[in-house]
Amino acid sequence: MSTGRDGGEKSGGGASYAASGVDVVGLEPGLGGLVRRLAATTAFPRVGRPALPNGFFANVLDLGTGQGLAISTDGVGTKLLVALAMERFDTIGIDLIAMNVNDVLCVGAEPIAVVDYIAISTTDPNLLNQFAIGLVEGARQARISIPGGEIAQVRELLRPHPPHGESFDVVATAVGVVPMDRIVVGQHVQPGDVVIGLPSNGIHSNGLTLARRVLVGERGPAAYRERPAALGGASVGEELLRPTRIYVAEVMALLDAGIDVKALAHITGDGLLNLSRIAAQGVGFVLDSLPEPQPIFAMLAEAARVEKAEMYTTFNMGIGFCIVVAEADLQRTLAILQPVEPRATVLGRAVADAQRKMVLPGPGLTGTGKTFSPLR
Amino acid sequence: MSTGRDGGEKSGGGASYAASGVDVVGLEPGLGGLVRRLAATTAFPRVGRPALPNGFFANVLDLGTGQGLAISTDGVGTKLLVALAMERFDTIGIDLIAMNVNDVLCVGAEPIAVVDYIAISTTDPNLLNQFAIGLVEGARQARISIPGGEIAQVRELLRPHPPHGESFDVVATAVGVVPMDRIVVGQHVQPGDVVIGLPSNGIHSNGLTLARRVLVGERGPAAYRERPAALGGASVGEELLRPTRIYVAEVMALLDAGIDVKALAHITGDGLLNLSRIAAQGVGFVLDSLPEPQPIFAMLAEAARVEKAEMYTTFNMGIGFCIVVAEADLQRTLAILQPVEPRATVLGRAVADAQRKMVLPGPGLTGTGKTFSPLR
Repeated sequence: MSTGRDGGEKSGGGASYAASGVDVVGLEPGLGGLVRRLAATTAFPRVGRPALPNGFFANVLDLGTGQGLAISTDGVGTKLLVALAMERFDTIGIDLIAMNVNDVLCVGAEPIAVVDYIAISTTDPNLLNQFAIGLVEGARQARISIPGGEIAQVRELLRPHPPHGESFDVVATAVGVVPMDRIVVGQHVQPGDVVIGLPSNGIHSNGLTLARRVLVGERGPAAYRERPAALGGASVGEELLRPTRIYVAEVMALLDAGIDVKALAHITGDGLLNLSRIAAQGVGFVLDSLPEPQPIFAMLAEAARVEKAEMYTTFNMGIGFCIVVAEADLQRTLAILQPVEPRATVLGRAVADAQRKMVLPGPGLTGTGKTFSPLR
Repeated sequence: MSTGRDGGEKSGGGASYAASGVDVVGLEPGLGGLVRRLAATTAFPRVGRPALPNGFFANVLDLGTGQGLAISTDGVGTKLLVALAMERFDTIGIDLIAMNVNDVLCVGAEPIAVVDYIAISTTDPNLLNQFAIGLVEGARQARISIPGGEIAQVRELLRPHPPHGESFDVVATAVGVVPMDRIVVGQHVQPGDVVIGLPSNGIHSNGLTLARRVLVGERGPAAYRERPAALGGASVGEELLRPTRIYVAEVMALLDAGIDVKALAHITGDGLLNLSRIAAQGVGFVLDSLPEPQPIFAMLAEAARVEKAEMYTTFNMGIGFCIVVAEADLQRTLAILQPVEPRATVLGRAVADAQRKMVLPGPGLTGTGKTFSPLR
């Protein structure tokens, strides 16, 4: 998700998110007033003013030393409800770190630390201990410290969940460092530049409201323990809990090697349309070499009977992160990525397009903003 | 509260917090395992490692340029329930900024930015707009920007509240800058140094669980609208919602003037015992000139029939922030504070004390760690 104040979940149409409990229509007006008011705060600090407008994956504060501080905040949304139903808490911490550090990476910053906040109904030592295991694993993968945090026991704010009436919410903030003259927001992307995709690990932390409605619905926790053949042995709950991939190693390998990375996009709640959030004017994308999404996505599409446009707007469809480089840098980029992530592949290219469309010839979709529709 | 992972609320004994819905006994073991695990993450980052151990008001990341980044995260706890009952949301944002920037100040840092997270059941534009008004006012007072944030519509995680079934939780993270050689954690405090107190604005954002139980109990929202004579015209709800004071102007005036500030303490959930969190060994405090607490505290003590020890462990008792300076710097310090906060007063002094006790001769209390008991 985004420091640019997306809602936690949102949708296009069809079997829409509004029906799944996320009221998109209500979200936008409330959000607009809030975002406009907060914009005024940019002028308040004596040092460390934000260098970017709203809407990118992270903002960057100009520390006045040539160094910028990237900052982003996010939670894991209703993936927590799957963890509660499965009574399994040792991977949610990885998702929480991932959702935040992947956003900080997108401005070209090296993540350095994450602080977390846990709102909890009862301080179950087992739950907290398991949650910490995931946090530490996420921190290890992201090469960040967790220098502080807060546990708030606020039972009265939280809705109890079966089987034991426990409830919790988790939020984190990531910070990272980037030289002020190396901030990446896609401003130099040109037609002909190449989009490289890094595979996701399933649905990550977006689209869970729709996925839960479709795969579990009113059937309750037992539905999470079913093992449909399509999932190759995993239960529904295990599949949905697969932790969000952390892309620090891939991106830092490129930045460390001095590759001129032109754009970085964490593929979250708007699917591949996240790539459209970059700053380049007059540039669109044609992604004509998308890999086959994992079986969970076909299973979701079939069970939900939603259109492809809805699927690609809601889910990552197998790609968790995109990297844009010039054609001239492609071979070196792939060579550097190879030992870190051998499944990195070219998805397509930037093209000249005043409308800044994202075109996906494979599934037959075209999109702008936050919605895909069928390609005519 | 604290980046040192306090629980959101805690207590001593008497009409204890456990009875008010905050299970202190359960909190500690869960917390211990989590804190121990997270300590391992200190070694993970390539740059920006934390410079402080756990337990201070904020941590500081060493950015490698001589500059340190202070970071702290906190929410406002169950003060939100008062806002929901009063249907008044335009000051909670001030509390949220205050709880975070006041902690960042305590390591000698200048706060520069806060990012916020709102978990909400339904995105009521009025609620969000009112909340933003408080955030902007807090940002103005704290001289910080709000460069990003996240709204997560997670109705299934939140417990609905009367009168309209709305619910929300808010969390924020503050960052600030401090030269690495100017980090203040009380390490140079010596016997004879002077403690200056800055007045609070009532109960701020701590002790609300106890205050609500005592003043409202089972009587519901109507009790918040009562106007007891002791509160001088304010309703119970208005008194409890008074926004947490932001102490940026006072502290920055001293740091800007080059005053050798020896320790800074945000007075939150452990009351004046927060001053004991500083790093100086062999030093205790005798605070023999405490001002009269605001009437809300006497009203709470009487209604709750709790001991003074409990009151001083749970509430700020009229002092929201403490500043420690050498006796030689006292007059200059008071002269600088005078135009910013004329009510700043000397509360007492640091003394040689191997046990590091906090002694309050007025109310007749002595405390170490997180608990006061009667002075014999």
